[in-house]
Amino acid sequence: MPRDFVERLTTPGQMVEGVFQVAEKDLRTTKKGQFFISAKLRDRSGEVPAVMWDATQALFAAIPQDGYALVKGRVGEYNGAPQILIEAMRPAKNSEIHLEDFLPVGPGDPDAQMARLKEIHDSVARPALRAFLAEFWKDEALVAAFRRAPAAEKLHHAYLGGLLEHTLSISEAALLLCQHYTQLDRDILLVGILWHDIGKTRELHYTESLGYTDAGKLVGHLVQGVVMLEEKFAAVRASGADFPEELANVVRHLVLAHHGTHEFGSPKLPMTAEAFTLHHLDNLDAKLHAFFRDVAADADPARRWTGFNRMFGGALYKGFEITVEEDKPDEELKGGL
Amino acid sequence: MPRDFVERLTTPGQMVEGVFQVAEKDLRTTKKGQFFISAKLRDRSGEVPAVMWDATQALFAAIPQDGYALVKGRVGEYNGAPQILIEAMRPAKNSEIHLEDFLPVGPGDPDAQMARLKEIHDSVARPALRAFLAEFWKDEALVAAFRRAPAAEKLHHAYLGGLLEHTLSISEAALLLCQHYTQLDRDILLVGILWHDIGKTRELHYTESLGYTDAGKLVGHLVQGVVMLEEKFAAVRASGADFPEELANVVRHLVLAHHGTHEFGSPKLPMTAEAFTLHHLDNLDAKLHAFFRDVAADADPARRWTGFNRMFGGALYKGFEITVEEDKPDEELKGGL
Amino acid sequence: MPRDFVERLTTPGQMVEGVFQVAEKDLRTTKKGQFFISAKLRDRSGEVPAVMWDATQALFAAIPQDGYALVKGRVGEYNGAPQILIEAMRPAKNSEIHLEDFLPVGPGDPDAQMARLKEIHDSVARPALRAFLAEFWKDEALVAAFRRAPAAEKLHHAYLGGLLEHTLSISEAALLLCQHYTQLDRDILLVGILWHDIGKTRELHYTESLGYTDAGKLVGHLVQGVVMLEEKFAAVRASGADFPEELANVVRHLVLAHHGTHEFGSPKLPMTAEAFTLHHLDNLDAKLHAFFRDVAADADPARRWTGFNRMFGGALYKGFEITVEEDKPDEELKGGL
Amino acid sequence: MPRDFVERLTTPGQMVEGVFQVAEKDLRTTKKGQFFISAKLRDRSGEVPAVMWDATQALFAAIPQDGYALVKGRVGEYNGAPQILIEAMRPAKNSEIHLEDFLPVGPGDPDAQMARLKEIHDSVARPALRAFLAEFWKDEALVAAFRRAPAAEKLHHAYLGGLLEHTLSISEAALLLCQHYTQLDRDILLVGILWHDIGKTRELHYTESLGYTDAGKLVGHLVQGVVMLEEKFAAVRASGADFPEELANVVRHLVLAHHGTHEFGSPKLPMTAEAFTLHHLDNLDAKLHAFFRDVAADADPARRWTGFNRMFGGALYKGFEITVEEDKPDEELKGGL
Amino acid sequence: MPRDFVERLTTPGQMVEGVFQVAEKDLRTTKKGQFFISAKLRDRSGEVPAVMWDATQALFAAIPQDGYALVKGRVGEYNGAPQILIEAMRPAKNSEIHLEDFLPVGPGDPDAQMARLKEIHDSVARPALRAFLAEFWKDEALVAAFRRAPAAEKLHHAYLGGLLEHTLSISEAALLLCQHYTQLDRDILLVGILWHDIGKTRELHYTESLGYTDAGKLVGHLVQGVVMLEEKFAAVRASGADFPEELANVVRHLVLAHHGTHEFGSPKLPMTAEAFTLHHLDNLDAKLHAFFRDVAADADPARRWTGFNRMFGGALYKGFEITVEEDKPDEELKGGL
Amino acid sequence: MPRDFVERLTTPGQMVEGVFQVAEKDLRTTKKGQFFISAKLRDRSGEVPAVMWDATQALFAAIPQDGYALVKGRVGEYNGAPQILIEAMRPAKNSEIHLEDFLPVGPGDPDAQMARLKEIHDSVARPALRAFLAEFWKDEALVAAFRRAPAAEKLHHAYLGGLLEHTLSISEAALLLCQHYTQLDRDILLVGILWHDIGKTRELHYTESLGYTDAGKLVGHLVQGVVMLEEKFAAVRASGADFPEELANVVRHLVLAHHGTHEFGSPKLPMTAEAFTLHHLDNLDAKLHAFFRDVAADADPARRWTGFNRMFGGALYKGFEITVEEDKPDEELKGGL
Repeated sequence: MPRDFVERLTTPGQMVEGVFQVAEKDLRTTKKGQFFISAKLRDRSGEVPAVMWDATQALFAAIPQDGYALVKGRVGEYNGAPQILIEAMRPAKNSEIHLEDFLPVGPGDPDAQMARLKEIHDSVARPALRAFLAEFWKDEALVAAFRRAPAAEKLHHAYLGGLLEHTLSISEAALLLCQHYTQLDRDILLVGILWHDIGKTRELHYTESLGYTDAGKLVGHLVQGVVMLEEKFAAVRASGADFPEELANVVRHLVLAHHGTHEFGSPKLPMTAEAFTLHHLDNLDAKLHAFFRDVAADADPARRWTGFNRMFGGALYKGFEITVEEDKPDEELKGGL
Repeated sequence: MPRDFVERLTTPGQMVEGVFQVAEKDLRTTKKGQFFISAKLRDRSGEVPAVMWDATQALFAAIPQDGYALVKGRVGEYNGAPQILIEAMRPAKNSEIHLEDFLPVGPGDPDAQMARLKEIHDSVARPALRAFLAEFWKDEALVAAFRRAPAAEKLHHAYLGGLLEHTLSISEAALLLCQHYTQLDRDILLVGILWHDIGKTRELHYTESLGYTDAGKLVGHLVQGVVMLEEKFAAVRASGADFPEELANVVRHLVLAHHGTHEFGSPKLPMTAEAFTLHHLDNLDAKLHAFFRDVAADADPARRWTGFNRMFGGALYKGFEITVEEDKPDEELKGGL
Repeated sequence: MPRDFVERLTTPGQMVEGVFQVAEKDLRTTKKGQFFISAKLRDRSGEVPAVMWDATQALFAAIPQDGYALVKGRVGEYNGAPQILIEAMRPAKNSEIHLEDFLPVGPGDPDAQMARLKEIHDSVARPALRAFLAEFWKDEALVAAFRRAPAAEKLHHAYLGGLLEHTLSISEAALLLCQHYTQLDRDILLVGILWHDIGKTRELHYTESLGYTDAGKLVGHLVQGVVMLEEKFAAVRASGADFPEELANVVRHLVLAHHGTHEFGSPKLPMTAEAFTLHHLDNLDAKLHAFFRDVAADADPARRWTGFNRMFGGALYKGFEITVEEDKPDEELKGGL
Repeated sequence: MPRDFVERLTTPGQMVEGVFQVAEKDLRTTKKGQFFISAKLRDRSGEVPAVMWDATQALFAAIPQDGYALVKGRVGEYNGAPQILIEAMRPAKNSEIHLEDFLPVGPGDPDAQMARLKEIHDSVARPALRAFLAEFWKDEALVAAFRRAPAAEKLHHAYLGGLLEHTLSISEAALLLCQHYTQLDRDILLVGILWHDIGKTRELHYTESLGYTDAGKLVGHLVQGVVMLEEKFAAVRASGADFPEELANVVRHLVLAHHGTHEFGSPKLPMTAEAFTLHHLDNLDAKLHAFFRDVAADADPARRWTGFNRMFGGALYKGFEITVEEDKPDEELKGGL
Repeated sequence: MPRDFVERLTTPGQMVEGVFQVAEKDLRTTKKGQFFISAKLRDRSGEVPAVMWDATQALFAAIPQDGYALVKGRVGEYNGAPQILIEAMRPAKNSEIHLEDFLPVGPGDPDAQMARLKEIHDSVARPALRAFLAEFWKDEALVAAFRRAPAAEKLHHAYLGGLLEHTLSISEAALLLCQHYTQLDRDILLVGILWHDIGKTRELHYTESLGYTDAGKLVGHLVQGVVMLEEKFAAVRASGADFPEELANVVRHLVLAHHGTHEFGSPKLPMTAEAFTLHHLDNLDAKLHAFFRDVAADADPARRWTGFNRMFGGALYKGFEITVEEDKPDEELKGGL
Repeated sequence: MPRDFVERLTTPGQMVEGVFQVAEKDLRTTKKGQFFISAKLRDRSGEVPAVMWDATQALFAAIPQDGYALVKGRVGEYNGAPQILIEAMRPAKNSEIHLEDFLPVGPGDPDAQMARLKEIHDSVARPALRAFLAEFWKDEALVAAFRRAPAAEKLHHAYLGGLLEHTLSISEAALLLCQHYTQLDRDILLVGILWHDIGKTRELHYTESLGYTDAGKLVGHLVQGVVMLEEKFAAVRASGADFPEELANVVRHLVLAHHGTHEFGSPKLPMTAEAFTLHHLDNLDAKLHAFFRDVAADADPARRWTGFNRMFGGALYKGFEITVEEDKPDEELKGGL
């Protein structure tokens, strides 16, 4: 049975049955002293308030906060918005939970994106870097994680597949720029782009929800990325290929310096042309993604500015071609007058 | 009659009679148009919601916000937590208020701590500094204030006795470090430690509640500490002992420079070995105290990280040996299913 | 019929009829399932909660959020404070809206202020600057906008007439200081003062409410002021008078540098004596205005400190001559005891 | 007669006759008490020390410091390096001075660059922006200045033709990126790129030497660029074409925000996607130009790092493929042993 | 015999006899192996190079570096500038040294300035502050030090009498501003102005040379000023007058907060209207003094900009009315051509 | 033959023969046109000027700048200080160069220090950390490098053996502090101390001179330390012992966070009690070492302050017990008078 996502639970009277994440829960008492549960149910499409009358303390305790529950009920209405009236509820069994229903997923086609990235990597000419990329592509666990991971918890590309999308996007931009800035070392730049955020596969967890792992908070994806480099350098050398230590330092530097300043957590400032280029391309790609996402998501389509945006430190200008409707009452509505 | 502290008001039906601070108060009306008071009652052990039905506007106005009230009633329950049902209430008389019931008190034994500090001071050898310390110990008002004052309003050692505890703790640490860094002038360092925060006896008020005095806000404990130094230097010299002006400058400098940077309010940066040492020991003692306090107080014992901590600018890692219980439903609880 | 401003709607039972801005509106349902509207009504004197029972969804939708409505009803009471009971309501017609009722107005007499400013300008001696000022005074639209504009959205002189008041105030202060610092070029300084914030006539809108225009957000009043300078330089030169480019640069510099630092948005740092003087006088005038306004407006007249003040980054000291009443219950109020 | 540039004055005995800039001059006396002049002579290819024996105080005074002198003499040698032995010298007449000999010139072909830029501009589709560009191209004085101006005094593209080269380079990069980031408004971005540094034609002087004009120091190229925009907006509108004020604000914003932060002198932070893109492309183009220039110019070809580089705040890594010669004495040179 | 100051030692052959400070000294050997001393001699009017042939190592050692020497000789010339040919020299006796000859002295008349300051103080009305000022004026040692001290080592008013001049200048400016900003407490402001830099009498030494004392470096004039306040508060109270502690805190605050920010060494930020005003007046007076001094002292009268100025972080614009002479050779000077 | 170090080359006429580093070299010509070499010779004890008359261009070119030369000559004198008169010189052969003569060596006994560190490590109780330390101690190459490396190029412990000395010193201090702060995990702290700077064995080179390696500049000792951790974690696990990943993260964090702030290059801020403690102990140990070194090395023993000290951002106060000799001529030395 296809799942009814929250965004579609809009018709009063509509039946509801399925597994939801319990984003909030509260045990309250009616005037008559009976317990009821007020909650918010969530899946990847959104969140909806819910109420269960005639609840018990034991049931309330059993429902895990931020965990999953199997819910049965109907769509009701409260303050002009949908509210789920829960008739029955219990903790969900693991076999009933489909994580894809609860995590945001990016818009792209991962198969096509991976194929295009592979194609780009096949154009790398330096033997040492070709050997390095070969080790990446044959590491199935890493490739799978890279394909699935988000690029961030919140800031940009914050959904499954976001790391791949972001990495591929910068790679495409770099290929174009290298046509113009011909002094750049295209091969080194492409390897730096692949690896710059690969530590996010370890910095973030993205099975039940998006968030930082303990290792991510204590070590961080820049240094985790360098540790993952060492694993691959060792593999390349174990395979009999040469990977000069000087080249290894340059690649390590690309990963460590890509945030551009100490303030943003880079232990080293960019000192090579490719490191500067990676830093600017990464920054521009993240900002353009967030800009167009936040402009598209802005609550009020009739205004030219978004609200205050924390990432950008101000409101964003959506453009002057937005049609701003003037609020003029074109007919007189009488409310008793 | 021993007082029932808030932390022990947990049994529904339990009788309540005593003086509480009124942390919040709100006059509301029932559906039927009758006034009732919603409030929070507080003492040093915690805070509990309370409600008084059948209240009047006059009574509401008479109860001082953040002041003390004599309350009579019973323990009830609301949303699964205790709530006091107030039956009668009036402003407390001064004679009924015991301030110790409302201010936090440190865990240590002040008598033992003062004795230990005295013992440490007795080991000071430089005659001028011995004479100085003698003036401190014979100033009964100052000694009493020093023994009672908190070390801060909120950041660390924020309870009665905190200044003594913090000062003694740094003194012990300094004695140990001086065994290793033998070039440090142990006597000067110990006097600097005693005096570094002594201005807090004037910067803070700590009789009814903890907070900053007008003088504290306008002048601050660093400069207040120097003014208090002048009083003692004068006393030493009046007593016939010598206190060289050069030594006086060094002690003033220790007090003024102990915050380490202009940004944190020191008008002078540390320029002597003892000033650096005092700054680091003070900083470390305050942070370790706050770290272990905040980790211990963290609401959720099953998580490895505290919430965002403003003093540290991030979450604190409580350690990997915390047993994190996985939220897995081990038996099926049916809520109607 | 003279309008009853919000600040005078305090007597239960008092009739209410007039146009108000609808600051908030919310459609809710009673226990019995009937819709009612909860709202806040506002004019330049303040804001009051309101409720309309027996509302419809259509009426709710017709009332513009932040727009104007004609309201009929009575003053009621809720939680001890006035609440308007709306009996009838509809969107206001343009002809019914008097914007002066909704925008804050400064305390001064604009006619007298303009006359005084003109008198000051008449004392300017340099021919080029006299010609420049003449172009200002004969530009009726600009003079009208300058007379009506606020000096800021919130920080200081944030009301109609504020720009004039602030500009005149600095001019007076500058005249006085020039008596003492005789090396200052009084004429250049006075022209710089007139023009330093004139871009606010374009940066802000102040017809229906105070706020930033799109041009204000994208360009800003410093650069808008320079663009307005160009218009006047062209007019002076078109009139046959000479306005040396060197003098023009000095005036442009005064406008661009008056915020004093890059951090506050000046693209150039002050490099002339007049630029330093303008920066300090502007800053001091704004701060003193805000200081005395915020001290006067502080909610609690019995305290010596205001609450945390964002503009100043701390609490303000209202002075020690404030009579702080000690909260001592001088008679015993019995609440059942 | 083709000029002998300084870089070619290397053969002892070689005749020298020509106009040089006098970078330094010093009047000294020999042991025997006779005056001589020690000086440095300069043209766009470099600088060489010079000495004139048997000089007089009058001649010394007549030679303008940093001005031009006609010099006659021979190449000599001092400390193993060339030194000009001046036999005769006088201030140069204006007709003898060819400024191109003294200013650095960029490597590109301005005709080809202008043609390519024109071609790019011809691809702009928005009518208002086409009309704007038409006004630029028909303003011969501006086009000539734009073609001749440097992009900076020192930091990057600091030679005649640098502004054109830098502007064209960013335009090419933008065209490429717009293939990938298709949501960007290509036309607006191209106009912003053309105008972002156009104020440098007024901020810098570049006839006798490179440096800042008074207007440049007092106003700056960002605001000068906006003032130049106004001139062209007026021309477009005077020509009968429409240039919406909303679009004008967006273009002004691109110019004002292109430095990216207040710290670097932008009075407004970027708030549109095109503004972010322009900021990053400008920054990257300037840095890559400076990076490759400084690496190429580094004094010691056998080292992998440049010296400390002020623009980048550190040394630059020239790459590991530099052959670093180890300093090993391969044969024994005897100096008396 | 009136002293010949360095600035007047310009005529070759002129006799020299007097005491000079020895700013530099160097023992060298001639080609023939004989010792000679190269030195710089200094008094308050300037500095001149000197040479003594036929010196001995013993004499060289006896002349104190930065101390005073009695010198006898003649004016010679070297590289077109005066040079003293020392014929005899020995360390000066204390009785021969007139310190006023070596310290810079301000341009004002201290008697008149003190009288004017007294007149201003006589206008103070609050009894407590009148009593305070009385204690200042009757402390002869302090009054004498205040009259003699400089206001800074280098930044502004860096000469004997500078503290008085600066204090009086701000007082005059404050009197004027109080006519306009009538809400300011004129009496408190005047006392704050008197005391804001009074700690400089202890922070600086100014008998043999200008510089910081040990106490000045370790404690600083802000806190030294507060310590000096305590001495006077005690004296006022000892005299039987009342000086409320609340008022004392406000005066202490004025002294401590007058640098305006932590960054510039104020342990407290301004929190009263008078504290803001003092901070701005102090800053403006210091900057205007330094601005006009540095513009007047600029080496090149024909340029519109000073060199880089460290206090202001840039070059200062001297004004467009400077006549900049174009360096054009108006007649042809032949140097052999 | 024992080497005569520079510090002992003080007697005119003394014979010199040995290998020196050539710190500076300059080819000059005498009046008569003959070449001579002016140079500075250096070993670990200091630096001395030298001159070689009758040199040739070929010899000059053969002597490597900053390399080693075998020098034969005598001690002369110039300007009252020793100068080497070189009679013969040639590049040194590798076999003649003893690097220990040219690199600074610490004052301690490395054998005793290593033994003490081993003893401390033997007290570690956690099995995983014992296994980790065992891997360290059996890695002979690493142990040798750790024993020999400096702790910095210049800032503190900048000599052979400095890393060991600094690491041991913090370890001792930590042992003492753990007696007082008993909640600290002593074992984790000790391992963090051992490893915090171990990356310096790769960040610095210290065979011919002290300096940064390419890897050090591109990667840095924090991340190099983490990479070295991975090598040892792998070795521990390969040996069959358990090293929990959670513990590994905590150790990585100690290494990465020990600089305390992003500004100083830590990619992570301290989040554990041990990380705070390590940061403060490291900082204090480095500062105290530098403080006492710079005070001891200060050129002028008779002054109470060092010169401006870059590491501390100011002058250091050497203490008031320094006997400052007043420069008073106690007998009259006549220089011809």
